[in-house]
Amino acid sequence: MLKLCRFLPSRNEQASNFLLGKATKIKDTFWLSAFSCQHGISTSGPDLVANAGNFSHRRFADYTIFKGKAALSVSPKLPSFCKVDSGSSRVDRKGVVMMTFWPAVGQRKYDWQKKQFFALSPTEVGSLISLGPDESCEFLHDPSMKSSLEGQVRKSLSVTPLGNSSGYFLNLTVVNTIQKTNERFSLPVTKAEFAVMRTALSYALPHIMGWDQVIRPQLPNIPRSTPKQQSDVLPDPDFEWGR
Amino acid sequence: MLKLCRFLPSRNEQASNFLLGKATKIKDTFWLSAFSCQHGISTSGPDLVANAGNFSHRRFADYTIFKGKAALSVSPKLPSFCKVDSGSSRVDRKGVVMMTFWPAVGQRKYDWQKKQFFALSPTEVGSLISLGPDESCEFLHDPSMKSSLEGQVRKSLSVTPLGNSSGYFLNLTVVNTIQKTNERFSLPVTKAEFAVMRTALSYALPHIMGWDQVIRPQLPNIPRSTPKQQSDVLPDPDFEWGR
Amino acid sequence: MLKLCRFLPSRNEQASNFLLGKATKIKDTFWLSAFSCQHGISTSGPDLVANAGNFSHRRFADYTIFKGKAALSVSPKLPSFCKVDSGSSRVDRKGVVMMTFWPAVGQRKYDWQKKQFFALSPTEVGSLISLGPDESCEFLHDPSMKSSLEGQVRKSLSVTPLGNSSGYFLNLTVVNTIQKTNERFSLPVTKAEFAVMRTALSYALPHIMGWDQVIRPQLPNIPRSTPKQQSDVLPDPDFEWGR
Amino acid sequence: MLKLCRFLPSRNEQASNFLLGKATKIKDTFWLSAFSCQHGISTSGPDLVANAGNFSHRRFADYTIFKGKAALSVSPKLPSFCKVDSGSSRVDRKGVVMMTFWPAVGQRKYDWQKKQFFALSPTEVGSLISLGPDESCEFLHDPSMKSSLEGQVRKSLSVTPLGNSSGYFLNLTVVNTIQKTNERFSLPVTKAEFAVMRTALSYALPHIMGWDQVIRPQLPNIPRSTPKQQSDVLPDPDFEWGR
Repeated sequence: MLKLCRFLPSRNEQASNFLLGKATKIKDTFWLSAFSCQHGISTSGPDLVANAGNFSHRRFADYTIFKGKAALSVSPKLPSFCKVDSGSSRVDRKGVVMMTFWPAVGQRKYDWQKKQFFALSPTEVGSLISLGPDESCEFLHDPSMKSSLEGQVRKSLSVTPLGNSSGYFLNLTVVNTIQKTNERFSLPVTKAEFAVMRTALSYALPHIMGWDQVIRPQLPNIPRSTPKQQSDVLPDPDFEWGR
Repeated sequence: MLKLCRFLPSRNEQASNFLLGKATKIKDTFWLSAFSCQHGISTSGPDLVANAGNFSHRRFADYTIFKGKAALSVSPKLPSFCKVDSGSSRVDRKGVVMMTFWPAVGQRKYDWQKKQFFALSPTEVGSLISLGPDESCEFLHDPSMKSSLEGQVRKSLSVTPLGNSSGYFLNLTVVNTIQKTNERFSLPVTKAEFAVMRTALSYALPHIMGWDQVIRPQLPNIPRSTPKQQSDVLPDPDFEWGR
Repeated sequence: MLKLCRFLPSRNEQASNFLLGKATKIKDTFWLSAFSCQHGISTSGPDLVANAGNFSHRRFADYTIFKGKAALSVSPKLPSFCKVDSGSSRVDRKGVVMMTFWPAVGQRKYDWQKKQFFALSPTEVGSLISLGPDESCEFLHDPSMKSSLEGQVRKSLSVTPLGNSSGYFLNLTVVNTIQKTNERFSLPVTKAEFAVMRTALSYALPHIMGWDQVIRPQLPNIPRSTPKQQSDVLPDPDFEWGR
Repeated sequence: MLKLCRFLPSRNEQASNFLLGKATKIKDTFWLSAFSCQHGISTSGPDLVANAGNFSHRRFADYTIFKGKAALSVSPKLPSFCKVDSGSSRVDRKGVVMMTFWPAVGQRKYDWQKKQFFALSPTEVGSLISLGPDESCEFLHDPSMKSSLEGQVRKSLSVTPLGNSSGYFLNLTVVNTIQKTNERFSLPVTKAEFAVMRTALSYALPHIMGWDQVIRPQLPNIPRSTPKQQSDVLPDPDFEWGR
């Protein structure tokens, strides 16, 4: 009998660790380890890199805009797959489009140490790419949802039109009730910049959903750990509700 | 002289067996076997998997939304190709976008055993991705069309606007006149969720049509059986009319 | 010093032979040889197939619609490349989207022998995919343009709206003044079918332009003949003007 | 500890050398060397070609239109990557969409020696592909910006509507204050031609941003020189401001 990994990980167990990371204890090496994690390969696991074959040829790229008060970087993070049987695999952790905001601390100077992440799910990507020129949207994330830390950190990303179809204003607020911090990142995004995001996000969407891998299987991707032994192969409704 | 497989299989002979499967005799293993069939490789044919080379690296991914009364999963199913000559191949069975509906049976609980499939043809995908915000469409399928069972099972998928350009209402009805069952699955799909579907379906469309394989041939795909020996190499008009 | 192939072949010397083929002397094997030509590998040249490596895994796919008076099949034809130096190559013959029309000769019966081709250039593809719901366009081709046979065969494809944004009417006229024939193929194309074409043509466009090969070089493609030894490496303005 | 290349090269140090090239000293071989540079492999470095494996199968393609007073060719130029650690790599030099203009010097005669380049950044590509039918845009480039030659050469590309949604007028002006030259290239671009550009540019955009390489790593790309040893791994705000 086959053992399958869960279809959608419950957000608090796996995804939030990834998405938020150690946001409250930022280390100098976080930028690198965040990228390394994106392929489910930790820098402390060179054995996995060896297993992953060509995945040693990982490449990093993003789209970054610098504005008066903050900078924003956008980059796709692929889903990870777990083996289910005879070499087949299934999406284990869904991919995201990672937005990274960090503040300006002077003219053309930005403090990377104060960065904050906001991971867009496929549906949130769908919301952004279908946004009309005069429409707004807002996403609320609680990275610790359904854990004992629920409500400790609240993130809100709002996208509001600049007017005259000239672009959008992006506004990220991160409230940490334990640390009593309230961070805010605001950037105007021009119509041209948003068109780049819209095109790049539309391109990335089928890939963060893993559909490109259905269509053209690639090298095996090594999950960080053996998938849980469970007979539940159904999609997990908690994921969508838990937001 | 070359022997070619038929351009389009008659729906009742091959495709309907695949698309409807054993919907009236659902087994616990159906979910897995359904996916295995998607590449034209049955789980009982490990020799074919061996022949298919890298196709042992098959990957499964979909887009799933959970709503109050039902859940919906959408996933591309690639076409299969049959060899025609000296290694060349031609689309044998057209690909589809498979929609799977299953009902809620309690709060955040869904009964996967009661799922129903609805396979979107390329033209039906075209209808969905070009749907205006205030437009509707409806697709009627008879999986046993032109067989002795014609009319036994009737499926109807309707897509109607929610109003205010806020999304669509998806409604699948499956009437089985022999079993005297009438199942109905209803889900509201938000504008953001429909944008994900539209983008993913637009991405998948050239692939379920096989155009990506014209452009970049991949590994050989093993058909389940030797194509019929017939001199008729023309597209089969029955397919479109038979719907 | 490097010898380069011409950037754009003059239409009458190479392309028209390919595009029109032997339309006036249709043989039973034409369908196959037309497809074989698409990759610049003739079925009579198995040595080239051997050279082309994986190109023996050529795959054929199209999008076909059957209507009351005619059928239409659409399929991408890739450009061919010619070597320029040390393994690099450049587009030699531009790709097209090939439309094939053939008439109905009874209920659900079509005569493939009476087919006519119409090869859409990249710019003509651009015209189709940007066509507004109430707009029309018309393309005129003289396959023998600038040869001694100029004016002998005239093809005209018109695309006119059906009204109510419900699709388009495609109308191909082929007039052969020598054979004194005048063939006409007419099909209504629904909005959904045109959406499939628009999506598939948009997908195919960068590929028939060869841009995908700039971005991700693939297996070497063997040109049918050694490119002409000429020092002229400039784009050839005759191509656009000669239409 | 890892040494990373700069995220975005300062425009004047690396990119402008590439983008403008030796525009003021055009040689016969420039067309070829420009293409060779596009992959970060100089023709004088055959050892690098050897290292790059399949990159010896480089392919060149563009989209060219010929008009009464000038011709325009558009082609994607990929980003280059530099190694950061254990085989991973990061975008070193951003990709562009290169536009090449050259003047007509007679009926259907063009002077390739008088060509001028204009390299569209990702954001400028975003501006073009989101341009409404009645909208205009203008890009200003100073290829020597922030060097001692700043202000010597000024390039301006304007895109203005032809009216009736029938296309755009492209107008490139290159003013060289040292050489006291003022060149001007003007082309009407039809709606169909612009649709080709829009589709091809939308296709190319994720690739010049390097996102396709995040999603599907390819062969290693050899940077022309070892990246600078610097601990600064942050995106460089000078790039955007320096324009």
